[in-house]
Amino acid sequence: MTATRLDVLAIGNAIVDIIADCDDAFLEAEGLTKGMMRLINADEAVRLYDHMGPAREISGGSAGNTAAGVAALGGRAGFIGQVAPDQLGEFYRHDLTATGVEFITPAQDFGVATGRVMVLVTPDAHRTMNTFLGAAQLLPPEALDPAQIEGAAILYLEGYLWDPEIPRNAMVKAIEIARGAGRQIAFTLSDSFCIDRHRDGFNALIDGGKVDILFANEVEIGALAGMADFDAAVAAVQDKVETLVVTRSEQGAIAVSRGERAQVAAEPVARIVDTTGAGDLFAAGFLAGRTQNRSLEDSLRMGAIAAAEVISHYGARPEADLKALVARKLG
Amino acid sequence: MTATRLDVLAIGNAIVDIIADCDDAFLEAEGLTKGMMRLINADEAVRLYDHMGPAREISGGSAGNTAAGVAALGGRAGFIGQVAPDQLGEFYRHDLTATGVEFITPAQDFGVATGRVMVLVTPDAHRTMNTFLGAAQLLPPEALDPAQIEGAAILYLEGYLWDPEIPRNAMVKAIEIARGAGRQIAFTLSDSFCIDRHRDGFNALIDGGKVDILFANEVEIGALAGMADFDAAVAAVQDKVETLVVTRSEQGAIAVSRGERAQVAAEPVARIVDTTGAGDLFAAGFLAGRTQNRSLEDSLRMGAIAAAEVISHYGARPEADLKALVARKLG
Repeated sequence: MTATRLDVLAIGNAIVDIIADCDDAFLEAEGLTKGMMRLINADEAVRLYDHMGPAREISGGSAGNTAAGVAALGGRAGFIGQVAPDQLGEFYRHDLTATGVEFITPAQDFGVATGRVMVLVTPDAHRTMNTFLGAAQLLPPEALDPAQIEGAAILYLEGYLWDPEIPRNAMVKAIEIARGAGRQIAFTLSDSFCIDRHRDGFNALIDGGKVDILFANEVEIGALAGMADFDAAVAAVQDKVETLVVTRSEQGAIAVSRGERAQVAAEPVARIVDTTGAGDLFAAGFLAGRTQNRSLEDSLRMGAIAAAEVISHYGARPEADLKALVARKLG
Repeated sequence: MTATRLDVLAIGNAIVDIIADCDDAFLEAEGLTKGMMRLINADEAVRLYDHMGPAREISGGSAGNTAAGVAALGGRAGFIGQVAPDQLGEFYRHDLTATGVEFITPAQDFGVATGRVMVLVTPDAHRTMNTFLGAAQLLPPEALDPAQIEGAAILYLEGYLWDPEIPRNAMVKAIEIARGAGRQIAFTLSDSFCIDRHRDGFNALIDGGKVDILFANEVEIGALAGMADFDAAVAAVQDKVETLVVTRSEQGAIAVSRGERAQVAAEPVARIVDTTGAGDLFAAGFLAGRTQNRSLEDSLRMGAIAAAEVISHYGARPEADLKALVARKLG
């Protein structure tokens, strides 16, 4: 195997978060289920935006957040995703690049704008996401750079990218290229509703041995396994992948890897402001730890530290110096 | 005089803030003076943005912030300013409208994008602003709606709008319309460097009796009067306007109105994050207080409360429920 140029190359929906506060009554009036991500079309995007309060725009997207987190932790990170040649697309590229992430997928004018998600944050810090995919849903397989994929130790994929057909094809092609180069594949289940939409596809990937490192939260692992009991769901999935990582919010996280098991508590947070990106940054911390040859437990701790930072402020990208934070807490 | 439709109608540069953290070394390397606002062209905007860290975008603009603050305090507020028909312009309109501000100036395609200011926030919470005016500098006098101006109790103007020639003409026309309808004119000096650029113009406005309520901070009142001593500068200016309001950062603020003098301490803030918008929100609180017929001292306190809220987070628009905050603190 040749040397790697990148530690983690993430592929996902390039999405800018449009974040506004709201109360529970607003969610109810809009018919929204707290904590879920739903896909919306252009008309619904306009309608909902008209109703929403004043907002802040911060680059997001699940895999993009993870790439930013890996870079902020000192890892060599890349991102593949589709933006349009517009202001949102420019912000997106700037924010990733400024964090130190390699992002070479060219913007393309397909007649649709860069994707955005209207993130509604309730006073309990939970986020409800309304995603207009825009250009992100048009990432063509041709946009992939095989040499970039072959040079990355880990190819990281978000389940959300399974929703639109064109990027799904790009993902499948990326997996083949990575596998051909002997690289590892990491995959996040993203969202329980996303699993409902694509359970067969996800299981085919996992059962087909295409996933080395699988990320899920408590609800998602249950949805994938079709079991309500946490331990039973973990037991049902853990042998299908080399490494399984499951986050449990305030109960911390567990990992099972080649028969080894580790767990960590959640990091304390002074005030939880916005839980968007918690899972993305947990994945970033864990992957950064593994590519730095840290132990399974220390890698989990890096995940917990990165997740704790991101939920302490609005937006799903790190604001603090994560590398210094980990050095202080973990050495 | 006919009844009013609006309490405060603000006219200013329609600008989206692009806010990033940086350290003092970055300011030095870029040749920037901490705390100042400078105007930059498109090339410099691109160059600086390339160097800046990941950012968040939040609608701003001095007078726009004041209008948003008045609305958040329960006042009837309007805004006049020029945006382009682009994504930033849509965000700008949305954020003002969602706060309850009337914003009817149509977007216009002059071939330039909506204005933006790159706000660099150092760890001491001070902000250094790099403004690309874009469409804002092209607000034509024809965009004014005379009936809107005639229906507003107070026309509020930002000194920054004196920089570009076309909106300066619009301001002068707006002042004439407001004066013709017997309305009050409020004016903020904006920035000491802005005063250096336009001292003669500002003094002509003030000496010509065109300003009823003048807002300044400690540095600005000194720059306008050409006196380093605070009390001397206030004494030199106070009789030229009906009401003079001067903010003094952590030393609170004073007001002099028709011979009456009041002062307040600064409101305590748990943690100052970003001082952008402090003066804008102070003006909002004071104007909301006056249009609610509050005393000079209570109006200053409303200013202090609104300013304290806005410096406790990133961005120059209120995030907390200002109306409830004032009701709790002031009754």
